[in-house]
Amino acid sequence: MRTPYLLFLGDAPEFSMIKTAAGIREWRPEFSRAQFRLPGCGVDLGLPDMTPAEAAAEGVGTMVLGVVNVGGFIPEVWLASIVAALEAGLDVASGMHQRLADIPIIAEAAARLGRTIHDVRQPKQVFTPGNGAKRSGKRLLTVGIDCVVGKKYTALAIEKAMRARGMKADFRATGQTGIMIAGHGVAIDAVIADFISGAAEWLSPANDPDHWDVIEGQGSLFHPSYAGVTLGLIHGSQPDAIVVCHEPVRTHLLGLDYPVPDLRTCIDANLAAARLTNPEVRAIGISINTSRMGAPEVDQVVKDIEAETGLPCCDPIRHGASKIVDLLDA
Amino acid sequence: MRTPYLLFLGDAPEFSMIKTAAGIREWRPEFSRAQFRLPGCGVDLGLPDMTPAEAAAEGVGTMVLGVVNVGGFIPEVWLASIVAALEAGLDVASGMHQRLADIPIIAEAAARLGRTIHDVRQPKQVFTPGNGAKRSGKRLLTVGIDCVVGKKYTALAIEKAMRARGMKADFRATGQTGIMIAGHGVAIDAVIADFISGAAEWLSPANDPDHWDVIEGQGSLFHPSYAGVTLGLIHGSQPDAIVVCHEPVRTHLLGLDYPVPDLRTCIDANLAAARLTNPEVRAIGISINTSRMGAPEVDQVVKDIEAETGLPCCDPIRHGASKIVDLLDA
Repeated sequence: MRTPYLLFLGDAPEFSMIKTAAGIREWRPEFSRAQFRLPGCGVDLGLPDMTPAEAAAEGVGTMVLGVVNVGGFIPEVWLASIVAALEAGLDVASGMHQRLADIPIIAEAAARLGRTIHDVRQPKQVFTPGNGAKRSGKRLLTVGIDCVVGKKYTALAIEKAMRARGMKADFRATGQTGIMIAGHGVAIDAVIADFISGAAEWLSPANDPDHWDVIEGQGSLFHPSYAGVTLGLIHGSQPDAIVVCHEPVRTHLLGLDYPVPDLRTCIDANLAAARLTNPEVRAIGISINTSRMGAPEVDQVVKDIEAETGLPCCDPIRHGASKIVDLLDA
Repeated sequence: MRTPYLLFLGDAPEFSMIKTAAGIREWRPEFSRAQFRLPGCGVDLGLPDMTPAEAAAEGVGTMVLGVVNVGGFIPEVWLASIVAALEAGLDVASGMHQRLADIPIIAEAAARLGRTIHDVRQPKQVFTPGNGAKRSGKRLLTVGIDCVVGKKYTALAIEKAMRARGMKADFRATGQTGIMIAGHGVAIDAVIADFISGAAEWLSPANDPDHWDVIEGQGSLFHPSYAGVTLGLIHGSQPDAIVVCHEPVRTHLLGLDYPVPDLRTCIDANLAAARLTNPEVRAIGISINTSRMGAPEVDQVVKDIEAETGLPCCDPIRHGASKIVDLLDA
């Protein structure tokens, strides 16, 4: 995706609807040049407001639809803005379920003007089944006790901590928000089932021996809806290191009547799965999401988890991820 | 799929290319009404030779392309026969990668004549992610140390043995050949990754308490290309019983430089995975593929495996599957 970005916030009334834009703003401030808000928009990322034409004049490459809604559809009220962006010379990127390329007025404008449309949920590559062959370079994968527990955030925090100390590191995105942040990647849950591990192999190709791919995990081995995706991603990623993401106060899987697994069970199951394609895999840390906990409680939980697992534990939002990276940088 | 079938053998020069037709002939003789061979065809299933028009006059409902080739494409020399079948009043089913519906002359004829085209590799249903909710009825899933080790054959032999003793049982197909045999099912490796377990839940819906779905397994938890599919299928199937398929003389995964897992390890890993959605799951037998072994050797291997695992062991081709079904019919 051509950088920098104009972050389209549309008419989003509240912050929970612009998580994609907020993620890009937080993790890729250098690409977040401006925001574009429609009447009725109730949020502000603290960026300059620009129209697509103004943004194009400032060198912006892509307008990113940074808004999510429940159905994942493109509201009609956005269409004129999207066409205006194409006409101003910008590419347009979307993580919605509904594809921009399926909307005739947008597809036609993009074709006529020679712009690129990025429907990041739809893999464009042709994948093949994974082959399990060892690749050079190092890989870290975030895994978790459940969905929506901080796997993307943890990976981004680890990439940031690695880069801060001069390590070679690249975040590798496997979901639409991550792809928007990274500018590339693959929506691993949208590929054909046969090609999950193959897509993961494609995502983190051979690299320098001291280079780290920090791969965004998906789902959980303990989630009855998505564990297949998780396992294929583990096998294709061939991680040298896994970081287990945990929310200490969570008792049940999101939206399901299933208990979350015990942390030790979760670590062991992920290591057992990962050993198939990388017998040397290690668990190197526990990342906790403490957004629903108070500070004193957090301190105790960190101590307890470190005592229980023998691994460094931190909340990447409260503490950053240095503690975990220390182990790899030794 | 409308039965009975006209099995199209095309110009297949040798038996290895008509495995789909041979599977239907073997497992669904009651549906295998006739065969249709083109000049150059070097194989014979022992069925009456009929043209599509003759078959239609005999009440045949569907012409099944029972031939496979390496690329999975529809050769041009077949096109006239396929159109002739549609014109004679037959539906046409194909398990090839290339879709009949994508070939204009075929799509046009089917639309004009009101016939149904079954491209069984392409799921027609819209799936949702699995929800892990318990369903009534009983389920048996075949799993394996590797791909192409006898999971479909074992499931079909178990269905046959169950039905022979009056048990309620249905084979549930998860691959294109199985779908051709059953007349329905889902090519589980062709669904979107997010929906693997959801598709498996769809495949074996709630049923009578004493009804068995005998589900065709896919891939292997120990196969780095396909384990994600395997795990999603396990979780969605919620098996009460698993049968582990094994080839005693196999040392490496088909086509990969990976050793096959130890049988005990394989049993335990599959049970551990299956317990997530069915804590009561049991391993009830070992199905061995002894096509590359001699009879005395087979007897010894059966004894050894039964001693090692404590489970009944048989080759469904040599011995049938009664020994395994005994445990469920007790």
